[in-house]
Amino acid sequence: MDQQLHFITFATQDLGRARGFYKDGLGWDPLMDVPGEIIFFQVAPGLVLGLFDAVKFDQDLNNQEKTLGVSGVTLSHNVGSAAEVSSTIERLAAAGATILKPAQAGAFGGIFHGHVKDPNGIIWEIAHNPGWRINSDGKVVFG
Amino acid sequence: MDQQLHFITFATQDLGRARGFYKDGLGWDPLMDVPGEIIFFQVAPGLVLGLFDAVKFDQDLNNQEKTLGVSGVTLSHNVGSAAEVSSTIERLAAAGATILKPAQAGAFGGIFHGHVKDPNGIIWEIAHNPGWRINSDGKVVFG
Repeated sequence: MDQQLHFITFATQDLGRARGFYKDGLGWDPLMDVPGEIIFFQVAPGLVLGLFDAVKFDQDLNNQEKTLGVSGVTLSHNVGSAAEVSSTIERLAAAGATILKPAQAGAFGGIFHGHVKDPNGIIWEIAHNPGWRINSDGKVVFG
Repeated sequence: MDQQLHFITFATQDLGRARGFYKDGLGWDPLMDVPGEIIFFQVAPGLVLGLFDAVKFDQDLNNQEKTLGVSGVTLSHNVGSAAEVSSTIERLAAAGATILKPAQAGAFGGIFHGHVKDPNGIIWEIAHNPGWRINSDGKVVFG
């Protein structure tokens, strides 16, 4: 099995609020938008984020797992400076996110970061990580 | 805010079982492995999957959210045929995954797929999706 992720899909209680936050609030461009079912956004080369109606998410798993909400996962977006961490968090809050952790030095990894929660409970970390970069071939390098 | 995801991080109850599954079982190559803290795997161009000790995951969020486990999220890996869906699910099960949904036609999107759960409860979908492709520039195309 190749070391490759193609989709990340979240059980979404309110697709309308997801559309309002990502499309209207952040200005993101949906790859596909199926009202009442799912909204897809491309978020990396070859990678799609899917916001999937929570009832259908459960159906798709044969209802073996009843989703009470999203937990235990964080999505991270890196920016170029500490100041940009703060301004990005402000922008997310203005678009309807709840601030969980204001911009500050992180406990791990020598980063400066903060966390917000989107209208459906998905946690995003906004971080400036001086020890991280992406090479021109897409390879991530630490340190 | 660019439409870009850089890290996806999961609260992980047992890092040793995560290492055993992804590194030893699937043969994936860690980008970085900090025992007792986090294991990183690159899973797309510019994108890293982090398996983060659950206690530290909570600390990093200022303990505002107590993680009881991962829920409401699925990671998907696409393969080239229905037969490869079945064989990949068998390989994941042999490496220690639990099968949630055996390989079958999906209810949504015209795909053939199945779901497994890794040793820490992270759900993976293995899918063959004839209506999906990645262009050479990394852009995902549906239909």
